[in-house]
Amino acid sequence: MKVFVVFAHPEPRSLTGSLLRVTVDELEAQGHEVRVSDLYAMKWKPQLDRDDFPQHPAEEPLSLTTASAAAAASDSHTEDVKREQEKLLWADAIIFQFPLWWYSMPAILKGWVDRVFTSGFGYGLGEYNEKHWGDRYGEGRLKGKRAMLIVTVGASSQQYSARGIAGPIEDLLFPITHGMLFYTGVDVLPSYLYWMAYRSNDEAFQAAADELRQRLRDLPVTEPIPYRHQNAGDYEIPSLLLKPGLENSSDSGFSLHRRTTNE
Amino acid sequence: MKVFVVFAHPEPRSLTGSLLRVTVDELEAQGHEVRVSDLYAMKWKPQLDRDDFPQHPAEEPLSLTTASAAAAASDSHTEDVKREQEKLLWADAIIFQFPLWWYSMPAILKGWVDRVFTSGFGYGLGEYNEKHWGDRYGEGRLKGKRAMLIVTVGASSQQYSARGIAGPIEDLLFPITHGMLFYTGVDVLPSYLYWMAYRSNDEAFQAAADELRQRLRDLPVTEPIPYRHQNAGDYEIPSLLLKPGLENSSDSGFSLHRRTTNE
Repeated sequence: MKVFVVFAHPEPRSLTGSLLRVTVDELEAQGHEVRVSDLYAMKWKPQLDRDDFPQHPAEEPLSLTTASAAAAASDSHTEDVKREQEKLLWADAIIFQFPLWWYSMPAILKGWVDRVFTSGFGYGLGEYNEKHWGDRYGEGRLKGKRAMLIVTVGASSQQYSARGIAGPIEDLLFPITHGMLFYTGVDVLPSYLYWMAYRSNDEAFQAAADELRQRLRDLPVTEPIPYRHQNAGDYEIPSLLLKPGLENSSDSGFSLHRRTTNE
Repeated sequence: MKVFVVFAHPEPRSLTGSLLRVTVDELEAQGHEVRVSDLYAMKWKPQLDRDDFPQHPAEEPLSLTTASAAAAASDSHTEDVKREQEKLLWADAIIFQFPLWWYSMPAILKGWVDRVFTSGFGYGLGEYNEKHWGDRYGEGRLKGKRAMLIVTVGASSQQYSARGIAGPIEDLLFPITHGMLFYTGVDVLPSYLYWMAYRSNDEAFQAAADELRQRLRDLPVTEPIPYRHQNAGDYEIPSLLLKPGLENSSDSGFSLHRRTTNE
């Protein structure tokens, strides 16, 4: 496989940086081709702004969706954005590797998504009609690819469990796994979590690295999270409400958008 | 009241920019003092990195929590971070105003949180013992202040409703309302949402602006979201699991962390 790793941590000698080396080494040992975008090392520009649209007239108000579509039509996205899109199209699997900061990704990685997932690439694809509401949520330019998050978390897994004060980790990551990755067509695997990063030691790191290596060996065959495809019949169109009766009685909120084992 | 608005949109002539003017005008009409951090106009640096810790030795690996605590102890945070912290301490109410990009805040605003909520200011406060697990989730430096999100959303409210494909908006915003704001001690009010921003018109804008003005008039008296305080008895310490039996039978996930009407 071809694997594209997007990495966001300012310190290569950090625990997160060590996990990146585990990731790359294991993937290469498995015979995969690996490319890494180390966003801090690349000095990635985080903010989506007017400089992303050099052909946009200076005096005109900037509508991001319009400017993004116009840049796509004239092939005038900035070179840094084009390079990342090319890596995404090249890849069979995409890995986002980052520390959880304030219950989400570091700004530099959010800005990678904001800037690289342009109109006609990340959104604004396909027909919008009574049976099909755009190529999104299971369809899109990145359909057929797999993705996985590798996330370093300061605190314990209990705090992020079903009854933990921070909320369940899979729900905190849902805006990323479902909203960013599945939205663009990608099959998303369950996330790999490194817990208690603030109090780690060599023994904990080795055990976690072993688990990560196993997850990476399984990358080609792991079952994705069974998110429901938007245009496959589960949702009313155009309201995009889940049709009644599909879920288990215990499902609500984000969990409604996974197929049940009975389906 | 003193109201601090943190604004994140690259185009002042956008719908989100127009809503900022509604916000500031209405708050001032009510006699409040208003300060605005317009992050794009300020050319706010989004990424948390080594430049945030000018006193950190160049050859030493950067541990962000350690470097942040050391910078606090020696009063050596960068001037831009100090100014934002001063505005937060000045304010009685804090407003984050932004467009929803990829189910979250724009990178520049996430980077404002990453950089301004430093150790000793946003986290790492108070005692950690068997009865009290730090000053957080309802306690902290910003305790007693109120906050509200004003969010512009491209699509319809249905897509973000209980059964909508994107997931309930209050759950998508939970990492911000609960994880960033309530964590630092702030009482968070229900968010104001502007729906269908991609297809807005004058009539829709005026109606939404009227609703926003009413929400702003009610800012001092609106009931906050009843998130559970960490150290007030609802959670086991140190596991931080919600104690059994406190919730309604229909609650799960994020909703567990709101007090029920019976409590």
